[in-house]
Amino acid sequence: MSEKIASTDYPIHELLAQRWSPYEFEDRPVSEADLCSLFEAARWAASSYNEQPWSYIIATKDNPKQFAKLLSCLVDANQIWAKNAPAIALGIVKLKFTHNNQDNRCAIHDLGLASANLVVEAMARGIYVHQMGGILPDKARDLFNIPDGFEAWTGMAIGYHGNAIALPDAMKERDSIPRQRKPLPQFVFSENWGNPSPLVQK
Amino acid sequence: MSEKIASTDYPIHELLAQRWSPYEFEDRPVSEADLCSLFEAARWAASSYNEQPWSYIIATKDNPKQFAKLLSCLVDANQIWAKNAPAIALGIVKLKFTHNNQDNRCAIHDLGLASANLVVEAMARGIYVHQMGGILPDKARDLFNIPDGFEAWTGMAIGYHGNAIALPDAMKERDSIPRQRKPLPQFVFSENWGNPSPLVQK
Repeated sequence: MSEKIASTDYPIHELLAQRWSPYEFEDRPVSEADLCSLFEAARWAASSYNEQPWSYIIATKDNPKQFAKLLSCLVDANQIWAKNAPAIALGIVKLKFTHNNQDNRCAIHDLGLASANLVVEAMARGIYVHQMGGILPDKARDLFNIPDGFEAWTGMAIGYHGNAIALPDAMKERDSIPRQRKPLPQFVFSENWGNPSPLVQK
Repeated sequence: MSEKIASTDYPIHELLAQRWSPYEFEDRPVSEADLCSLFEAARWAASSYNEQPWSYIIATKDNPKQFAKLLSCLVDANQIWAKNAPAIALGIVKLKFTHNNQDNRCAIHDLGLASANLVVEAMARGIYVHQMGGILPDKARDLFNIPDGFEAWTGMAIGYHGNAIALPDAMKERDSIPRQRKPLPQFVFSENWGNPSPLVQK
Protein backbone atom coordinates (compact mmCIF):
# COMPACT_ATOMS: atom_id res chain seq x y z
CA MET A 1 0.00 0.00 0.00
CA SER A 2 1.20 3.48 -0.73
CA GLU A 3 1.71 5.54 2.41
CA LYS A 4 1.16 9.24 2.83
CA ILE A 5 4.10 11.05 4.37
CA ALA A 6 3.24 14.62 5.33
CA SER A 7 4.67 17.26 3.01
CA THR A 8 6.14 19.46 5.74
CA ASP A 9 7.54 22.99 5.55
CA TYR A 10 9.80 22.29 8.55
CA PRO A 11 11.23 18.92 9.60
CA ILE A 12 9.24 16.82 12.09
CA HIS A 13 9.74 13.41 13.67
CA GLU A 14 9.00 10.54 11.31
CA LEU A 15 6.29 9.09 13.56
CA LEU A 16 4.34 12.34 13.24
CA ALA A 17 4.97 12.69 9.50
CA GLN A 18 3.89 9.10 8.81
CA ARG A 19 0.61 9.20 10.75
CA TRP A 20 -2.64 9.43 8.85
CA SER A 21 -6.15 8.02 9.15
CA PRO A 22 -6.90 5.27 6.64
CA TYR A 23 -10.31 3.95 5.70
CA GLU A 24 -8.80 0.70 4.45
CA PHE A 25 -7.64 -1.82 7.02
CA GLU A 26 -5.95 -5.14 6.42
CA ASP A 27 -7.65 -8.32 7.68
CA ARG A 28 -4.93 -8.96 10.28
CA PRO A 29 -5.21 -8.78 14.07
CA VAL A 30 -3.27 -6.42 16.30
CA SER A 31 -1.49 -8.42 19.02
CA GLU A 32 -2.55 -8.13 22.63
CA ALA A 33 0.96 -6.97 23.51
CA ASP A 34 0.68 -4.13 20.99
CA LEU A 35 -2.75 -3.08 22.26
CA CYS A 36 -1.45 -3.00 25.85
CA SER A 37 1.40 -0.72 24.80
CA LEU A 38 -1.01 1.58 22.96
CA PHE A 39 -3.06 2.13 26.11
CA GLU A 40 0.08 2.36 28.23
CA ALA A 41 1.15 5.24 26.00
CA ALA A 42 -2.20 6.96 26.58
CA ARG A 43 -1.74 6.42 30.32
CA TRP A 44 1.36 8.61 30.48
CA ALA A 45 -0.13 11.69 28.84
CA ALA A 46 -0.26 14.98 30.70
CA SER A 47 -3.54 16.11 32.26
CA SER A 48 -4.80 19.05 34.25
CA TYR A 49 -4.24 18.28 37.97
CA ASN A 50 -3.13 14.81 36.83
CA GLU A 51 -6.83 13.96 36.69
CA GLN A 52 -6.34 11.43 33.87
CA PRO A 53 -9.96 12.01 32.77
CA TRP A 54 -9.79 9.44 29.95
CA SER A 55 -11.14 5.90 29.80
CA TYR A 56 -11.42 3.54 26.86
CA ILE A 57 -13.70 0.67 25.95
CA ILE A 58 -12.02 -1.72 23.53
CA ALA A 59 -13.34 -4.58 21.40
CA THR A 60 -11.50 -6.86 19.02
CA LYS A 61 -12.73 -9.26 16.36
CA ASP A 62 -11.72 -12.16 18.61
CA ASN A 63 -15.03 -11.48 20.30
CA PRO A 64 -17.54 -10.89 17.48
CA LYS A 65 -20.45 -10.15 19.80
CA GLN A 66 -18.59 -7.45 21.68
CA PHE A 67 -17.13 -6.09 18.45
CA ALA A 68 -20.64 -5.74 16.97
CA LYS A 69 -21.89 -4.07 20.15
CA LEU A 70 -19.14 -1.46 20.10
CA LEU A 71 -19.41 -0.99 16.31
CA SER A 72 -23.10 -0.14 16.76
CA CYS A 73 -22.05 2.93 18.78
CA LEU A 74 -20.50 4.51 15.65
CA VAL A 75 -22.57 6.46 13.15
CA ASP A 76 -23.52 4.43 10.06
CA ALA A 77 -21.04 6.29 7.85
CA ASN A 78 -18.21 5.13 10.12
CA GLN A 79 -19.47 1.57 10.60
CA ILE A 80 -19.09 1.00 6.83
CA TRP A 81 -15.31 1.09 6.99
CA ALA A 82 -14.49 0.69 10.72
CA LYS A 83 -15.97 -2.82 10.66
CA ASN A 84 -12.87 -3.90 8.73
CA ALA A 85 -10.46 -2.89 11.49
CA PRO A 86 -9.40 -5.69 13.86
CA ALA A 87 -9.91 -3.48 16.93
CA ILE A 88 -12.22 -0.59 17.70
CA ALA A 89 -12.48 1.56 20.80
CA LEU A 90 -14.43 4.37 22.38
CA GLY A 91 -12.71 7.26 24.16
CA ILE A 92 -14.67 8.33 27.25
CA VAL A 93 -14.19 11.44 29.32
CA LYS A 94 -14.91 12.23 32.96
CA LEU A 95 -16.31 15.75 32.89
CA LYS A 96 -15.69 16.82 36.51
CA PHE A 97 -12.54 16.82 38.61
CA THR A 98 -12.34 13.99 41.14
CA HIS A 99 -10.68 16.17 43.80
CA ASN A 100 -13.44 18.82 44.02
CA ASN A 101 -16.32 17.73 41.72
CA GLN A 102 -16.00 20.98 39.75
CA ASP A 103 -16.18 21.12 35.93
CA ASN A 104 -12.90 20.10 34.34
CA ARG A 105 -12.52 22.53 31.47
CA CYS A 106 -9.56 20.53 30.16
CA ALA A 107 -11.16 17.07 30.32
CA ILE A 108 -11.98 16.75 26.61
CA HIS A 109 -8.67 18.34 25.66
CA ASP A 110 -6.81 15.88 27.84
CA LEU A 111 -8.59 12.91 26.26
CA GLY A 112 -7.05 14.29 23.06
CA LEU A 113 -3.59 14.33 24.65
CA ALA A 114 -3.98 10.69 25.72
CA SER A 115 -5.33 9.53 22.38
CA ALA A 116 -2.54 11.33 20.53
CA ASN A 117 -0.03 9.41 22.62
CA LEU A 118 -1.82 6.18 21.71
CA VAL A 119 -1.59 7.08 18.02
CA VAL A 120 2.16 7.80 18.24
CA GLU A 121 2.76 4.46 19.95
CA ALA A 122 0.69 2.75 17.26
CA MET A 123 2.70 4.39 14.48
CA ALA A 124 5.93 3.23 16.14
CA ARG A 125 4.57 -0.31 15.70
CA GLY A 126 3.35 0.14 12.12
CA ILE A 127 -0.25 0.32 13.32
CA TYR A 128 -2.70 2.96 12.10
CA VAL A 129 -5.48 4.58 14.09
CA HIS A 130 -8.42 6.33 12.47
CA GLN A 131 -10.11 8.49 15.08
CA MET A 132 -13.77 9.46 14.77
CA GLY A 133 -16.02 12.15 16.13
CA GLY A 134 -19.00 10.40 14.57
CA ILE A 135 -20.21 8.22 17.41
CA LEU A 136 -23.51 7.76 19.27
CA PRO A 137 -22.78 8.76 22.89
CA ASP A 138 -26.27 7.99 24.19
CA LYS A 139 -26.28 4.54 22.65
CA ALA A 140 -22.83 3.90 24.14
CA ARG A 141 -24.15 5.00 27.54
CA ASP A 142 -27.06 2.56 27.28
CA LEU A 143 -25.16 -0.42 25.92
CA PHE A 144 -22.11 -0.11 28.19
CA ASN A 145 -23.77 1.43 31.26
CA ILE A 146 -21.58 4.53 31.18
CA PRO A 147 -22.49 6.43 34.35
CA ASP A 148 -23.55 10.06 34.68
CA GLY A 149 -20.59 12.41 34.70
CA PHE A 150 -18.80 10.36 32.05
CA GLU A 151 -19.42 10.58 28.31
CA ALA A 152 -18.24 8.75 25.22
CA TRP A 153 -16.56 11.38 23.07
CA THR A 154 -14.58 9.66 20.33
CA GLY A 155 -14.21 6.43 18.44
CA MET A 156 -11.11 4.85 17.01
CA ALA A 157 -10.38 2.08 14.56
CA ILE A 158 -7.02 0.38 15.10
CA GLY A 159 -5.19 -1.88 12.68
CA TYR A 160 -2.84 -2.26 9.75
CA HIS A 161 -3.34 -0.28 6.58
CA GLY A 162 -4.29 -2.60 3.74
CA ASN A 163 -6.79 -3.54 1.11
CA ALA A 164 -10.26 -3.81 2.53
CA ILE A 165 -13.01 -5.80 0.89
CA ALA A 166 -16.13 -4.01 -0.32
CA LEU A 167 -15.17 -0.50 0.63
CA PRO A 168 -16.96 2.24 -1.34
CA ASP A 169 -14.80 3.74 -4.09
CA ALA A 170 -15.11 7.21 -2.53
CA MET A 171 -13.34 6.00 0.61
CA LYS A 172 -10.62 4.20 -1.34
CA GLU A 173 -10.08 7.42 -3.25
CA ARG A 174 -9.81 9.45 -0.04
CA ASP A 175 -7.06 7.08 1.07
CA SER A 176 -5.07 7.84 -2.07
CA ILE A 177 -5.06 11.66 -2.06
CA PRO A 178 -2.27 13.66 -0.38
CA ARG A 179 -2.80 15.01 3.12
CA GLN A 180 -3.48 18.76 3.26
CA ARG A 181 -3.07 21.29 6.04
CA LYS A 182 -3.17 25.07 6.52
CA PRO A 183 0.34 26.61 6.45
CA LEU A 184 1.78 27.83 9.76
CA PRO A 185 1.26 31.59 9.16
CA GLN A 186 -2.49 30.90 9.17
CA PHE A 187 -2.53 29.60 12.75
CA VAL A 188 0.70 30.58 14.57
CA PHE A 189 0.37 34.18 15.69
CA SER A 190 2.32 36.74 17.71
CA GLU A 191 1.35 40.11 19.21
CA ASN A 192 -2.23 39.98 17.99
CA TRP A 193 -4.83 37.55 16.69
CA GLY A 194 -4.33 36.85 13.00
CA ASN A 195 -0.85 38.35 12.93
CA PRO A 196 1.49 35.61 11.66
CA SER A 197 4.39 35.07 14.02
CA PRO A 198 7.70 36.33 12.56
CA LEU A 199 9.04 32.90 13.56
CA VAL A 200 7.07 31.11 10.86
CA GLN A 201 7.52 33.65 8.08
CA LYS A 202 11.15 33.01 7.24
CA MET B 1 19.14 17.53 36.16
CA SER B 2 17.54 14.21 36.99
CA GLU B 3 14.90 13.18 34.48
CA LYS B 4 11.73 11.28 35.18
CA ILE B 5 11.24 8.30 32.89
CA ALA B 6 7.77 6.81 33.23
CA SER B 7 7.64 3.54 35.17
CA THR B 8 5.59 1.63 32.62
CA ASP B 9 3.82 -1.74 32.92
CA TYR B 10 4.14 -2.27 29.14
CA PRO B 11 6.87 -0.89 26.86
CA ILE B 12 6.24 2.46 25.15
CA HIS B 13 8.25 4.66 22.82
CA GLU B 14 11.03 6.56 24.58
CA LEU B 15 9.67 9.96 23.52
CA LEU B 16 6.43 9.20 25.37
CA ALA B 17 8.18 7.72 28.41
CA GLN B 18 10.54 10.68 28.74
CA ARG B 19 7.90 13.42 28.56
CA TRP B 20 6.91 15.22 31.73
CA SER B 21 5.98 18.75 32.76
CA PRO B 22 8.73 20.56 34.65
CA TYR B 23 8.36 23.70 36.73
CA GLU B 24 12.06 24.43 36.42
CA PHE B 25 13.32 25.79 33.11
CA GLU B 26 16.88 26.61 32.16
CA ASP B 27 17.73 30.18 31.14
CA ARG B 28 18.43 29.18 27.53
CA PRO B 29 16.44 30.08 24.43
CA VAL B 30 14.75 27.61 22.12
CA SER B 31 15.91 28.21 18.56
CA GLU B 32 13.51 29.57 15.96
CA ALA B 33 14.09 26.45 13.87
CA ASP B 34 13.03 24.26 16.78
CA LEU B 35 9.92 26.35 17.45
CA CYS B 36 8.91 26.12 13.78
CA SER B 37 9.19 22.33 13.89
CA LEU B 38 7.10 22.19 17.07
CA PHE B 39 4.22 24.00 15.39
CA GLU B 40 4.73 22.03 12.18
CA ALA B 41 4.20 18.89 14.26
CA ALA B 42 0.95 20.33 15.63
CA ARG B 43 -0.09 21.15 12.07
CA TRP B 44 -0.17 17.51 11.00
CA ALA B 45 -2.43 16.23 13.77
CA ALA B 46 -5.73 14.58 12.92
CA SER B 47 -8.93 16.56 13.29
CA SER B 48 -12.62 16.00 12.76
CA TYR B 49 -13.47 16.88 9.13
CA ASN B 50 -9.86 18.09 8.85
CA GLU B 51 -11.10 21.32 10.46
CA GLN B 52 -7.72 22.01 12.16
CA PRO B 53 -9.54 24.02 14.86
CA TRP B 54 -6.32 24.95 16.65
CA SER B 55 -4.37 28.21 16.63
CA TYR B 56 -1.47 29.33 18.80
CA ILE B 57 -0.16 32.66 20.01
CA ILE B 58 3.55 32.48 20.82
CA ALA B 59 5.89 34.84 22.66
CA THR B 60 9.58 34.48 23.39
CA LYS B 61 11.88 36.35 25.74
CA ASP B 62 13.49 37.99 22.71
CA ASN B 63 10.52 40.33 22.88
CA PRO B 64 10.08 41.16 26.59
CA LYS B 65 6.99 43.29 26.06
CA GLN B 66 5.12 40.59 24.16
CA PHE B 67 6.35 37.94 26.60
CA ALA B 68 4.95 39.93 29.53
CA LYS B 69 1.66 40.45 27.70
CA LEU B 70 1.20 36.75 27.08
CA LEU B 71 2.43 35.81 30.57
CA SER B 72 -0.30 38.03 32.03
CA CYS B 73 -2.91 35.71 30.48
CA LEU B 74 -1.84 32.88 32.82
CA VAL B 75 -3.22 32.57 36.35
CA ASP B 76 -0.83 33.90 39.02
CA ALA B 77 0.12 30.41 40.20
CA ASN B 78 1.39 29.61 36.71
CA GLN B 79 3.11 32.95 36.10
CA ILE B 80 5.44 32.22 39.07
CA TRP B 81 7.26 29.46 37.22
CA ALA B 82 6.27 29.94 33.56
CA LYS B 83 8.09 33.29 33.51
CA ASN B 84 11.36 31.32 33.56
CA ALA B 85 10.62 29.50 30.30
CA PRO B 86 12.13 31.06 27.16
CA ALA B 87 8.89 30.66 25.21
CA ILE B 88 5.24 30.60 26.20
CA ALA B 89 2.14 30.09 24.10
CA LEU B 90 -1.62 30.01 24.21
CA GLY B 91 -3.63 27.26 22.52
CA ILE B 92 -6.81 28.65 20.98
CA VAL B 93 -9.75 26.72 19.63
CA LYS B 94 -12.34 27.52 16.98
CA LEU B 95 -15.59 26.21 18.42
CA LYS B 96 -17.68 25.85 15.24
CA PHE B 97 -17.00 24.04 11.99
CA THR B 98 -15.98 26.26 9.11
CA HIS B 99 -17.92 24.22 6.52
CA ASN B 100 -21.35 24.54 8.15
CA ASN B 101 -21.03 26.85 11.21
CA GLN B 102 -22.33 24.07 13.48
CA ASP B 103 -20.81 23.28 16.89
CA ASN B 104 -17.64 21.21 16.56
CA ARG B 105 -17.93 18.73 19.42
CA CYS B 106 -14.35 17.61 18.79
CA ALA B 107 -12.72 21.06 18.62
CA ILE B 108 -11.25 21.05 22.12
CA HIS B 109 -10.25 17.42 21.81
CA ASP B 110 -8.50 18.15 18.54
CA LEU B 111 -6.54 21.03 20.07
CA GLY B 112 -5.30 18.32 22.45
CA LEU B 113 -4.25 16.13 19.51
CA ALA B 114 -2.30 19.01 17.98
CA SER B 115 -0.64 20.03 21.23
CA ALA B 116 0.34 16.43 21.97
CA ASN B 117 2.09 16.30 18.60
CA LEU B 118 3.90 19.52 19.51
CA VAL B 119 5.04 17.95 22.78
CA VAL B 120 6.36 14.82 21.06
CA GLU B 121 8.32 16.94 18.59
CA ALA B 122 9.70 18.97 21.49
CA MET B 123 10.82 15.84 23.34
CA ALA B 124 12.58 14.60 20.21
CA ARG B 125 14.64 17.79 20.43
CA GLY B 126 15.30 17.63 24.19
CA ILE B 127 12.76 20.38 24.80
CA TYR B 128 10.12 20.17 27.54
CA VAL B 129 6.60 21.57 27.41
CA HIS B 130 4.54 22.22 30.52
CA GLN B 131 0.91 22.60 29.48
CA MET B 132 -1.54 24.56 31.61
CA GLY B 133 -5.28 24.73 32.02
CA GLY B 134 -4.84 27.70 34.33
CA ILE B 135 -5.18 30.62 31.96
CA LEU B 136 -7.39 33.71 31.74
CA PRO B 137 -9.37 33.31 28.49
CA ASP B 138 -11.21 36.64 28.77
CA LYS B 139 -8.00 38.56 29.38
CA ALA B 140 -6.43 36.80 26.40
CA ARG B 141 -9.45 37.76 24.28
CA ASP B 142 -9.05 41.42 25.30
CA LEU B 143 -5.28 41.67 24.96
CA PHE B 144 -4.95 39.76 21.70
CA ASN B 145 -8.34 40.61 20.12
CA ILE B 146 -9.40 37.00 19.86
CA PRO B 147 -12.69 37.10 17.94
CA ASP B 148 -16.04 35.57 18.91
CA GLY B 149 -16.21 31.90 18.07
CA PHE B 150 -12.59 31.36 19.11
CA GLU B 151 -11.39 30.86 22.68
CA ALA B 152 -8.05 30.52 24.43
CA TRP B 153 -8.13 27.13 26.10
CA THR B 154 -4.61 26.22 27.20
CA GLY B 155 -1.23 27.65 27.98
CA MET B 156 2.18 26.12 27.46
CA ALA B 157 5.68 26.86 28.67
CA ILE B 158 8.41 25.65 26.32
CA GLY B 159 12.08 25.28 27.12
CA TYR B 160 14.90 23.18 28.52
CA HIS B 161 14.64 21.56 31.92
CA GLY B 162 17.10 23.14 34.29
CA ASN B 163 17.68 25.01 37.51
CA ALA B 164 15.45 28.02 37.77
CA ILE B 165 16.22 30.95 40.01
CA ALA B 166 13.84 31.83 42.82
CA LEU B 167 11.36 29.03 42.34
CA PRO B 168 9.33 28.13 45.44
CA ASP B 169 10.59 24.99 47.18
CA ALA B 170 7.21 23.28 46.74
CA MET B 171 7.60 23.46 42.97
CA LYS B 172 11.19 22.25 43.04
CA GLU B 173 9.99 19.33 45.12
CA ARG B 174 7.22 18.51 42.67
CA ASP B 175 9.85 18.28 39.96
CA SER B 176 11.73 15.66 41.95
CA ILE B 177 8.97 13.16 42.75
CA PRO B 178 8.20 10.20 40.47
CA ARG B 179 5.34 10.44 37.97
CA GLN B 180 2.23 8.53 38.96
CA ARG B 181 -0.65 7.18 36.91
CA LYS B 182 -3.66 4.91 37.35
CA PRO B 183 -2.94 1.34 36.16
CA LEU B 184 -4.57 0.20 32.91
CA PRO B 185 -7.30 -1.99 34.47
CA GLN B 186 -8.77 1.18 35.99
CA PHE B 187 -9.45 2.83 32.64
CA VAL B 188 -9.32 0.24 29.82
CA PHE B 189 -12.60 -1.64 29.78
CA SER B 190 -14.37 -4.29 27.71
CA GLU B 191 -17.98 -5.49 27.57
CA ASN B 192 -19.19 -3.05 30.21
CA TRP B 193 -18.20 0.15 31.99
CA GLY B 194 -15.73 -0.54 34.81
CA ASN B 195 -15.00 -4.07 33.62
CA PRO B 196 -11.23 -4.25 33.08
CA SER B 197 -10.41 -5.50 29.61
CA PRO B 198 -8.94 -9.04 29.66
CA LEU B 199 -6.22 -7.56 27.45
CA VAL B 200 -4.72 -5.53 30.27
CA GLN B 201 -5.05 -8.11 33.04
CA LYS B 202 -2.35 -10.52 31.98
